[in-house]
Amino acid sequence: MTVRIPLETLRGFAHEALTRSGLSEADAATAAEVIVYADEHGFTTHGTNALAGIYSPRLRDGRINAAAEPRIVADTVSAAVIDGDGGLGLVTTTMATDLAVEKARQSGIAMVAVRNSSHFGSAGYYAHRATEAGLIAIAMTNCGAQGVAPPLGGTIRMLGTNPLAVAAPAPGGAPFVLDMSATTVATGKIRAAQREGRQVPGGWLVDHHGETVTDPDAYFDGKADVTWLGGSAVTGGAKGYGLALLVDLLCGPLAGASFGPTPDLLENGEERPDTDIGHVVIAIDPAAFGAAESFGAGARTLLDTVAACPPARPDGYVTYPGAPEAARSAESRRDGVLLPGPVAAQLVLMADQLDLSVPAALRPEVLRPEAVSA
Amino acid sequence: MTVRIPLETLRGFAHEALTRSGLSEADAATAAEVIVYADEHGFTTHGTNALAGIYSPRLRDGRINAAAEPRIVADTVSAAVIDGDGGLGLVTTTMATDLAVEKARQSGIAMVAVRNSSHFGSAGYYAHRATEAGLIAIAMTNCGAQGVAPPLGGTIRMLGTNPLAVAAPAPGGAPFVLDMSATTVATGKIRAAQREGRQVPGGWLVDHHGETVTDPDAYFDGKADVTWLGGSAVTGGAKGYGLALLVDLLCGPLAGASFGPTPDLLENGEERPDTDIGHVVIAIDPAAFGAAESFGAGARTLLDTVAACPPARPDGYVTYPGAPEAARSAESRRDGVLLPGPVAAQLVLMADQLDLSVPAALRPEVLRPEAVSA
Repeated sequence: MTVRIPLETLRGFAHEALTRSGLSEADAATAAEVIVYADEHGFTTHGTNALAGIYSPRLRDGRINAAAEPRIVADTVSAAVIDGDGGLGLVTTTMATDLAVEKARQSGIAMVAVRNSSHFGSAGYYAHRATEAGLIAIAMTNCGAQGVAPPLGGTIRMLGTNPLAVAAPAPGGAPFVLDMSATTVATGKIRAAQREGRQVPGGWLVDHHGETVTDPDAYFDGKADVTWLGGSAVTGGAKGYGLALLVDLLCGPLAGASFGPTPDLLENGEERPDTDIGHVVIAIDPAAFGAAESFGAGARTLLDTVAACPPARPDGYVTYPGAPEAARSAESRRDGVLLPGPVAAQLVLMADQLDLSVPAALRPEVLRPEAVSA
Repeated sequence: MTVRIPLETLRGFAHEALTRSGLSEADAATAAEVIVYADEHGFTTHGTNALAGIYSPRLRDGRINAAAEPRIVADTVSAAVIDGDGGLGLVTTTMATDLAVEKARQSGIAMVAVRNSSHFGSAGYYAHRATEAGLIAIAMTNCGAQGVAPPLGGTIRMLGTNPLAVAAPAPGGAPFVLDMSATTVATGKIRAAQREGRQVPGGWLVDHHGETVTDPDAYFDGKADVTWLGGSAVTGGAKGYGLALLVDLLCGPLAGASFGPTPDLLENGEERPDTDIGHVVIAIDPAAFGAAESFGAGARTLLDTVAACPPARPDGYVTYPGAPEAARSAESRRDGVLLPGPVAAQLVLMADQLDLSVPAALRPEVLRPEAVSA
């Protein structure tokens, strides 16, 4: 079952939920943008699903500081560190993105790291935001102590999915937006399969003997781990594992946030605070490379060329990262944002807790059979 | 069959071969460093194997400009573009790395792009070089028109392996050095299997119906393509494909080099010049982030923690990218650099062509049974 809700209605609802959860009007507007971007582009685990499941409850109980005043604690011509003051990652990382863009326009390339922050939602939002200013950007985050996979060949989950997004402008069509985790899949997809009683595809999970497992319960029972991008050591798993380490090195030790498994976690199962997460945003201005116009034109040519490659299968198609999401965005703007029924149900519950009126489109009676096959 | 040759002997031999191929003393010294780094660290396809197979012949016949005078054609506080003047990628990219390091020390992060360059050897060398100055670095290259894989789901090989290396200093042990292609494996490994009459592991090659293929001939016959890191679309192949596009976007349109498949190539099979390749080096100075000391200490902690994870299999081990290569380097320095017999034989042939005396260690009579099982 799914619902469709007009984009502006969803944005207004998210904004209102955030202010009722304690955020200022300005911060709520910023965060609602990030949240709605995710739903609009089809990243439905990271949009209003996270609003109801993570942001609103944690803002209300103080695990995330609703009154945070992030401040710049290190600052050079092309580098900065923001202390997030325990606030919402959506707000601190938008600030970091805009600062990186501003600095890159001055210097050519800039990098802003954020510490003392929390879950930042869809990595692609920040990278995509920079492309609207004509810049190339990279955004990444570590994941606190919620390890999902052991070091390659190991037994203890020490690292998160550590997502990484890269985007580049390509005027005349959809920009390039690669939004990826360092694991084969984000854990939300394992959870969705479990909820819906489905097996997961071979290659997503591996048990402690190195055998592939398709029962999603095995992940939650600790009997199987999510694989690194590339799978086993033979097929390049060290690369996905290495990318996860890269993200943790930059978002942890460089940003001044926590990283890896803390000794506490290993010894007694204690959890880190939700706001000990780090992020990094890098922005690159093609103009500094003498490519103010030629970069976008070249990017367009490259992306159009690969997308025009004949498909191998008669029913197949060729595309590039960013194009399917742009098509989904256009659909969302035209027909309304498609949300899974369980997300809509969560939003209704959240609205109830916040004493917020529920948009008609989210009401249970409008739930309709899934339009898209599973 | 393998040989072992003292590191300094190999470096001297490479240096002499390069001057006899036309390079100046200074450029030969620079290039010999990069070449020997590859052999020393176990990247034997990218060391003296490339010297004999690529650099020396192309320097001699002019496909690579031995007298190149690379110059900086764009320059800001944290960005620069180098025109390589058709010269050797090993020289232009070392220059780019040192410029990026120098700029990053001033500004915090810097990026140098190179155009009009050629094969740059081991990407890890440049990233590793920056760690010796205490910086974090990223190095990447596109691959000219020698496409090895189609866009995901497509039929025409349009993109190269597009390698990417990232390194970070971690004093007190081996640095983090991730040196990866965007494909599951570099094509040198397919070629080695073919030469040795071995099948390749499942997952490396896929035919046009999406089925895995283990016969290396299928790749050279055009019946199967190298897979993207992640494999099929279901297991994350769009991520490896996306990383290849990222590398091509930065090394092509941003650097001002060629990219993707040229229309010429698609229409009439013409090849691009060998010197239409682009590279990018990014350097990051932890000091700008207030982490001059804490970054290295934190990186050491993270890397030691993951490497201490208990292995899943009794005969297994856990490590991190950079550690096995550092162990190989120590072995090379102690016992001499291990080269495959066919590489030694190629070097003997090259020495003959250059009228250069062959180090005793490379002579055929010292070839010995392979010490390491295949």
